[in-house]
Amino acid sequence: MDIKVPRGTQDILPSETGKWQAVEELIREQCRMYQYKEIRTPVFEHTELFTRSVGDTTDIVQKEMYTFQDRGNRSLTLRPEGTASAVRAFVEHKMFGYPDQPVKLYYMGPMFRYERQQAGRYRQFVQFGIEAIGSADPAIDAEVISLAMSVYQNAGLKKLKLVINSLGDKESRVSHKTALVSHFEPHIEEFCSDCQNRLQKNPLRILDCKVDRNHPLMETAPSLADFLNEESAAYFEKVKEYLTILNIPFEVDPNLVRGLDYYNHTAFEIMSAAEGFGAITTLAGGGRYNGLVEELGGPDAPGIGFAMSIERLLLAIEAENNDWSDKSTLDVYVIGLGEAAKKKAVELTYQLRQQKITAEMDYLDRKMKTQMKSADRLKAKFVLVIGDDELEKESAMLKELATGTQNLVPFSSLIDQIKTSSTQLEAEENE
Amino acid sequence: MDIKVPRGTQDILPSETGKWQAVEELIREQCRMYQYKEIRTPVFEHTELFTRSVGDTTDIVQKEMYTFQDRGNRSLTLRPEGTASAVRAFVEHKMFGYPDQPVKLYYMGPMFRYERQQAGRYRQFVQFGIEAIGSADPAIDAEVISLAMSVYQNAGLKKLKLVINSLGDKESRVSHKTALVSHFEPHIEEFCSDCQNRLQKNPLRILDCKVDRNHPLMETAPSLADFLNEESAAYFEKVKEYLTILNIPFEVDPNLVRGLDYYNHTAFEIMSAAEGFGAITTLAGGGRYNGLVEELGGPDAPGIGFAMSIERLLLAIEAENNDWSDKSTLDVYVIGLGEAAKKKAVELTYQLRQQKITAEMDYLDRKMKTQMKSADRLKAKFVLVIGDDELEKESAMLKELATGTQNLVPFSSLIDQIKTSSTQLEAEENE
Repeated sequence: MDIKVPRGTQDILPSETGKWQAVEELIREQCRMYQYKEIRTPVFEHTELFTRSVGDTTDIVQKEMYTFQDRGNRSLTLRPEGTASAVRAFVEHKMFGYPDQPVKLYYMGPMFRYERQQAGRYRQFVQFGIEAIGSADPAIDAEVISLAMSVYQNAGLKKLKLVINSLGDKESRVSHKTALVSHFEPHIEEFCSDCQNRLQKNPLRILDCKVDRNHPLMETAPSLADFLNEESAAYFEKVKEYLTILNIPFEVDPNLVRGLDYYNHTAFEIMSAAEGFGAITTLAGGGRYNGLVEELGGPDAPGIGFAMSIERLLLAIEAENNDWSDKSTLDVYVIGLGEAAKKKAVELTYQLRQQKITAEMDYLDRKMKTQMKSADRLKAKFVLVIGDDELEKESAMLKELATGTQNLVPFSSLIDQIKTSSTQLEAEENE
Repeated sequence: MDIKVPRGTQDILPSETGKWQAVEELIREQCRMYQYKEIRTPVFEHTELFTRSVGDTTDIVQKEMYTFQDRGNRSLTLRPEGTASAVRAFVEHKMFGYPDQPVKLYYMGPMFRYERQQAGRYRQFVQFGIEAIGSADPAIDAEVISLAMSVYQNAGLKKLKLVINSLGDKESRVSHKTALVSHFEPHIEEFCSDCQNRLQKNPLRILDCKVDRNHPLMETAPSLADFLNEESAAYFEKVKEYLTILNIPFEVDPNLVRGLDYYNHTAFEIMSAAEGFGAITTLAGGGRYNGLVEELGGPDAPGIGFAMSIERLLLAIEAENNDWSDKSTLDVYVIGLGEAAKKKAVELTYQLRQQKITAEMDYLDRKMKTQMKSADRLKAKFVLVIGDDELEKESAMLKELATGTQNLVPFSSLIDQIKTSSTQLEAEENE
């Protein structure tokens, strides 16, 4: 019985990782433009971190966490999302004392949710996210949203839809909650058991329920928009104004509530409108989480952030027919024929690599012809052949694959010759 | 009660991640030179993968694994090392059928071992490793070793020590095992219970025991070197010959056995000889693992690889006083004074970033003077000031911080002006 990759997870193969690296590089570059700096937190955290931040009535905490005891009997959980860890680190390392506020962080790494298997969903997936902690300026809400949009635009995506909403402040949410309870309570027995539990604890979650989404009471439910107090409404107006200044088109969707408890004020999702993208169109989601820093033991520092799935970004790139496939080539394929020449080939291959020239050679003692085929497959620019004759002349035959031109080059000038020819070749290609 | 980072793990803070990124980039570049391609496997695997490959008598499997049941009652383990996963993926995706053999893979990511806490050891740590699967050519053993050495040399390390050994093939190991049992058996009751268990199952592990390392029988134990059959000895000679051709100095240490069951033939470690590096001086370790692919359900494909700790690489860089600290600067700090100017500042900051100019602004409505201090701290090259006056003139005051020179520049030519001045500034700095 062979051992397979665990159910719901995937390997990313060498032919695919080039795309991942390119996308991640693009993301790091955008973060640099926007002055967000990377933070790396452990893959697992104390379970309590997530129950307290993500919320113990959410699907994530109730059904989807990988929770286990370590050998010291601590309850640990593989992180299902990145914000809780970033805020935990913000508090633990007293980043609220850093001279430059807000503190602007980004993270990129694996997250874990035990979800039912379906296309495009993995139990281990990679999220990139940012957090701006320490400012309640609506302008930074616009900055956060614009960074997400910039990543997608720089990845070549054109069919994007930005949806925003305001979840209001605490006061607004309390009024809305009361209205929600009154709305659902008379008919709550028609809803799933999860929703029945949610009614008193967190009725907003009902609107997010996947089971009851077609119940008629869903559509007539009181909208948070009608319960925003003056301050919350003014804040939301400002965010919209800044987005307009930045020329970023958006739609307001009063039903956008997001599946995590910590959000308030601004909430947003970015979706792909590309055809054939599949059922799950959300590429990124985020929002403001004033209060979360305090909840996790820090001062009253407001925060906002988003998370995006790298898997879905790559799917969206594909759906819009952008080509991010691996275009890598090889500078030199080195062929040594016979035992003595093989040793020289090993040495030259090493020296080329030391000089930042990509080089490859054969390790299976295959015939010249088979090695030439490898060189072709690897898109080698040059092949270097050394046999007994060449060895005697302290030289190698340098062949340019595109033209077939070949010259006998002394070992002593080989690297210079390859560098020169390589530069010429590139110049010609760029013409 | 605040929630802290789990015991034995660490956060890597924004001031530190720049170094990590730089080192990782260097590693990816070296892999490109050597034509190793990245593979990404999940953070957890079926537990059986590690018991079968790493070996069920090893410390890793017996004491250090994070093992848990998922919600489907599968026994999963956070990977303690990377080779088992790479080989599992090699078999599962039938990479033995790829046209280019050996398959050359690299991985970089978190690994997990529940070890006693000590300086420089974390329960989550990052390993970079490579695997060359499909060739039994001693030249590729030298290539694998040389890649590790190249990474360290390119990171600026000079005080390196390469130690190699041969663990021989199966036949050699069986003869050696018999000799080991005869050597230890008469006094086995003087050894720890782990060693007593190891005696029949895997007596080689005794040599690796941390508890009994000072027992007199350790020093007089029969050396594997004396039991190598002709083929194994010849293979080892070839590896040494290739290392000599590559001008890579090495020492042979007959006691080097490595703590994993799957190794045979070539085994090696690279150590830091830097003063004050601390007790744990091993930077990287690896070896050949012919038979492992077959053990995991694949064909009889030979393999070799190594793993290195990024944490220790960074410690070694520090111990040799190399400076890899974050040298990042900021192109432009944008200051908008007053509500209308703030909006313009938001817009300009965004436009600069879109043009690949790093830009930052204030989100706390702080005074001009405080904002100027931020600009200094962020090492801004330029400050852009917009007040009501400037706004009326559709212009901004562009100030070069190094010289104090300032000019009123129309909004329409701002980006061009900043690009030109930036290029000039860089040219001056490089003079």
